[in-house]
Amino acid sequence: MIEAGDLRALERALREGIPLARAMDVRALDYDGHRLALGAPLAPNVNDKGNAFGGSLSSLLTLAAWGLVNLKMAEAGLVADVYVQQANLSYLAPVWGELIAEAYAEDGAWPGFLAALRERGRARIVVFAEIAGAGGAGTAARQDARFVARAASG
Amino acid sequence: MIEAGDLRALERALREGIPLARAMDVRALDYDGHRLALGAPLAPNVNDKGNAFGGSLSSLLTLAAWGLVNLKMAEAGLVADVYVQQANLSYLAPVWGELIAEAYAEDGAWPGFLAALRERGRARIVVFAEIAGAGGAGTAARQDARFVARAASG
Repeated sequence: MIEAGDLRALERALREGIPLARAMDVRALDYDGHRLALGAPLAPNVNDKGNAFGGSLSSLLTLAAWGLVNLKMAEAGLVADVYVQQANLSYLAPVWGELIAEAYAEDGAWPGFLAALRERGRARIVVFAEIAGAGGAGTAARQDARFVARAASG
Repeated sequence: MIEAGDLRALERALREGIPLARAMDVRALDYDGHRLALGAPLAPNVNDKGNAFGGSLSSLLTLAAWGLVNLKMAEAGLVADVYVQQANLSYLAPVWGELIAEAYAEDGAWPGFLAALRERGRARIVVFAEIAGAGGAGTAARQDARFVARAASG
């Protein structure tokens, strides 16, 4: 279980629970209560053209969004399995350096998500995530994804 | 460069050019001229819940589609960099065993794609890809993605 606001515990959960996150060398960079930032160096995430592999971009976007949902649940004292159900991805520009993904949801979306999870043991939420362009300028990749959380039964 | 129909060369290109494909232990399984199948064992692609990580599913779907575009270009004697531009993903059921992705396009889509690439040095195509459910039944994940190929300039 991830404690509320504990970025190191989130990073450990990602790296110990998901071998590919460890292979990507994923790091938890920042969380301000609204946005979660994850990073990964280019070297283990490079493609044949020397920029970031699309699958690494997709994975980091999904991990950032998944991590944000887990942090929000931890703040509310809730435990549930979180799955991605659907995702729309746009790859806008090649990434030639460190991958940095930031995930967020509409602020108004969290209370309903957490209330539904508490009351019905199941809830959905759309989480947005972006990977910054070179030097933090613009957006290199963007995802909106629907996640479902299911409380452990029994 | 990948030779026409050479699955081993495609597998080498994936594993040597993309470290994450090697970390996923991706294998080229089959190509019949229309569909390309790639596989990966569950162990390096597992998530915290013991089934396949969404990022691994997304990566394998994208690699299968990317590989199919490269095989089709090789058959036509064309060389170009192939990038994914946009993807829509549905995660329909958890995958508890080997990941097997199959990529294909509408048969009628290839002639126009290859002609545009030959004539204009740039072309786009939509490639579909699916990951089979347990025992090959049903579909566990599905992607449609738009790829762009750009001939090396000069």
